[in-house]
Amino acid sequence: MDSKSLTPLRIVVIGAGNVAFQLSKSLSRAGHIIAQVVNRTEANAKLLASMTNCGYTIDAHKTLKDTDLYILAVPDGAITELCSTLPKLSGLVVHTSGSTSLDVLSPLGKDFGVFYPFQTFSKDHEVNLTNIPFCLEASSPSCLDLLKQLALSLGGNPIEMDSKQRQMLHLAGVFSCNFVNHMLAIAQILAEENEFDFQLLSPLVLETIKKALDGDPLKFQTGPASRGDSETIKKHLALLSRMDDDLRDLYLSLSTSIMNFKQS
Amino acid sequence: MDSKSLTPLRIVVIGAGNVAFQLSKSLSRAGHIIAQVVNRTEANAKLLASMTNCGYTIDAHKTLKDTDLYILAVPDGAITELCSTLPKLSGLVVHTSGSTSLDVLSPLGKDFGVFYPFQTFSKDHEVNLTNIPFCLEASSPSCLDLLKQLALSLGGNPIEMDSKQRQMLHLAGVFSCNFVNHMLAIAQILAEENEFDFQLLSPLVLETIKKALDGDPLKFQTGPASRGDSETIKKHLALLSRMDDDLRDLYLSLSTSIMNFKQS
Repeated sequence: MDSKSLTPLRIVVIGAGNVAFQLSKSLSRAGHIIAQVVNRTEANAKLLASMTNCGYTIDAHKTLKDTDLYILAVPDGAITELCSTLPKLSGLVVHTSGSTSLDVLSPLGKDFGVFYPFQTFSKDHEVNLTNIPFCLEASSPSCLDLLKQLALSLGGNPIEMDSKQRQMLHLAGVFSCNFVNHMLAIAQILAEENEFDFQLLSPLVLETIKKALDGDPLKFQTGPASRGDSETIKKHLALLSRMDDDLRDLYLSLSTSIMNFKQS
Repeated sequence: MDSKSLTPLRIVVIGAGNVAFQLSKSLSRAGHIIAQVVNRTEANAKLLASMTNCGYTIDAHKTLKDTDLYILAVPDGAITELCSTLPKLSGLVVHTSGSTSLDVLSPLGKDFGVFYPFQTFSKDHEVNLTNIPFCLEASSPSCLDLLKQLALSLGGNPIEMDSKQRQMLHLAGVFSCNFVNHMLAIAQILAEENEFDFQLLSPLVLETIKKALDGDPLKFQTGPASRGDSETIKKHLALLSRMDDDLRDLYLSLSTSIMNFKQS
């Protein structure tokens, strides 16, 4: 345990997706005990349970263990339905969703909270949670304090945040992770189709990110749209039209948005 | 000089924008001699000339010096016009443009080439050219060899590439630099408007980039669009509608594009 003040918790993990996998493994490594994995798809439940040395169940309503903490790491859209099928729980219940309010958990018991690790997770890519912001919200100061200690025990950076602010952070995360990754996926396709090495992009991407994370990406915008270079934009649209109309439209939307930002 | 085989070159730099500034400073540091700066706007010409200890002119046609190398570091759209106003040149003439073909330089003399540093440049942000790809093309093998030596003298990574391939790399650069930066600029605005620290995004962005540059961003796409989570997409569109219709449309275009990639 990184944090001296928190005794190891016994935890039930509900869900067996990317977040459940990475969080469970990190919790185990930090000395906590995964007491049970709950998931409707047996294969995933079994795999995660075997990795964290615990049992699993596919039926939360019937066979849920009594523990200190229940982590609902299921898709955002499944949380509300899950809450209606679970029994009342005596331990602290948290969800890990950026876009779901705290209140949806209130039917489950008196102690509930949000434990949202602000990171991107894939099952087959180990993630280090050191310094990751954990956005926390809870039904009481004591629950909030427990979640802070839990985040610290994982090496994370606990941040108290209400549901409104957390959903805006989540939205910012979609732009700066999912959409950024999509831009690089498009670059990857361009590299494959035109037979140049995708790694040629690496110094450019790293410099872009370094400058942007210095704190003012608006100031450092460069490129054809930023300098109003309509000739180059036209050339690029023509190149993309030969490949894919959707990519051409996306290029145009992005360029227009950059130009609008310049003017505002 | 990093490269033993190249004696310092005397260079005229035409242009005084971001690329001209950073390239001139790097060339000077590597031991080359900037003999003259040429630029229509006197203030910028004077500033760059003073930084590289040389003279300047605002009239290329009348007072251009005789040198080994002429670097046309002007906006892409200005290259063709500039070529029609310059006199015939005895030295090697290169442009630094990703999207402009080699041929446009042929009226200027028998030795011409492309010297395209694949990086993003800002006047007030020092850039390290070590390992930066320099995409090269030239009118003859000996010119190409000189450009290779020049790139190596800057610590760069010389890559021979024809005009077609270079313009596709440039297009990939717009996606992976300009558009990536725009995603982060939008995240910056969301942070400012909702009073959370933009730096909270840093671990997420760094992890996203690390995974993507491992070579397969298509595989590591996550987020609401990737998992077909229409509820979260709807929530995000509603949040953005309150702020800005253009941002809402952009979010929708990007999400649709991610979904199309999943299906293809």
